[in-house]
Amino acid sequence: MASNDPTTPSRIDDATYRTGIVELLGLLAYGEISACERLAEDAKLAPDLKNKVEIAAMATAEFGHFEKLRDRLVELGEDPYETMQQFATIFERFHSQTSPSDWLEGLVKAYVGDGLAADFYREIAAYLDADTRALVLDTLSGTGHSEFVIDAIRGAIERDHRVGGRLALWGRRLMGEALSQAQMVVAERDALSVVLVGGVDHPGMDLAGIGRMFTRITEAHAARMAKLGLAA
Amino acid sequence: MASNDPTTPSRIDDATYRTGIVELLGLLAYGEISACERLAEDAKLAPDLKNKVEIAAMATAEFGHFEKLRDRLVELGEDPYETMQQFATIFERFHSQTSPSDWLEGLVKAYVGDGLAADFYREIAAYLDADTRALVLDTLSGTGHSEFVIDAIRGAIERDHRVGGRLALWGRRLMGEALSQAQMVVAERDALSVVLVGGVDHPGMDLAGIGRMFTRITEAHAARMAKLGLAA
Repeated sequence: MASNDPTTPSRIDDATYRTGIVELLGLLAYGEISACERLAEDAKLAPDLKNKVEIAAMATAEFGHFEKLRDRLVELGEDPYETMQQFATIFERFHSQTSPSDWLEGLVKAYVGDGLAADFYREIAAYLDADTRALVLDTLSGTGHSEFVIDAIRGAIERDHRVGGRLALWGRRLMGEALSQAQMVVAERDALSVVLVGGVDHPGMDLAGIGRMFTRITEAHAARMAKLGLAA
Repeated sequence: MASNDPTTPSRIDDATYRTGIVELLGLLAYGEISACERLAEDAKLAPDLKNKVEIAAMATAEFGHFEKLRDRLVELGEDPYETMQQFATIFERFHSQTSPSDWLEGLVKAYVGDGLAADFYREIAAYLDADTRALVLDTLSGTGHSEFVIDAIRGAIERDHRVGGRLALWGRRLMGEALSQAQMVVAERDALSVVLVGGVDHPGMDLAGIGRMFTRITEAHAARMAKLGLAA
């Protein structure tokens, strides 16, 4: 029965699943620390101290997420930094291809990135053992520092309507880059994809399930863009 | 009697004292947020992910300090960002004149800066009303993330002895700049200096007391430099 129950904690003893989970934690940990780093960098574009602080608060929250994920890797007996290092290229590529050219682009990236990460965490949580799921959902619970972005973007569009078109394009580009990097991770990482799509001995998403997941994620992205006053 | 007791909470009702405390909180808050920002910047010089994370942990701790100080300014009915803004020049000048040229200089600056800030917080705490003192000591209690610097600097000196001479000079420059900016703040801010050196109606440090404070701070600085294996 255990092998049919994706929530049983004993799955961590399965070698492939364990490798996949370690890779997943490393992926998320690198994602959080690189988000923290880029937010700190983008904070420099802030028009004033208050806005700089809002972005710094987001960066600090990401660092808190990173610490939880890192500590779990240590608990599992892994070197967290070595585990994370293999995902450096993915995130550095994403960030170098989505480097904001001004404060508003930085805000949209922070908001869209925060939302996408939360969606992804929620989606994968269902396929994880109980301990890892609790950690992932706990990490997720710290998000939501990005609500101030809504007023800022809507205000900017009100002052100059052309801003809306430019930022809508930017939002599409962010989503495209995120999906393309995600696809590359899954293609390159067998164990990690087994965690998500399942293997011979335990269920995961089937192709229709993956399709529905992408639909949910793109719909949530469109809803976030609409909140910002942008066409998805 | 109240006017002779520097710890009585009612001092906050005294207009000059209140102005001084608001300035002090603004000064400390700007110091914390600018330290956070510069640490995030210096983290880029880190030779690896582990070291980057150690510096990011320090930056995050500074942000936590900032939040406490900001929230206190809000409680006092002040606009925290406006209050902080007046100290921007002081800190931007300090940081632009002490921009580390490499990772080791960044580490020494983080360690020396963290220590000096803690010393300063401890010294001024004695001259504050009970509420403000509790806040300042509470803020102080979050420091101490910089211990990893000791091994890093000692290791670097062991590998190349010339590093020791260069970093010792750098440490002296940091201390000199910090004292020179501190002196400028006191010279420009009457209310703030009244908090520290006292006014007609309440005690503070006398000149001999200020002298002893500087002695204690420079001795503590020398002890920290020695811990790093550097001549003060």
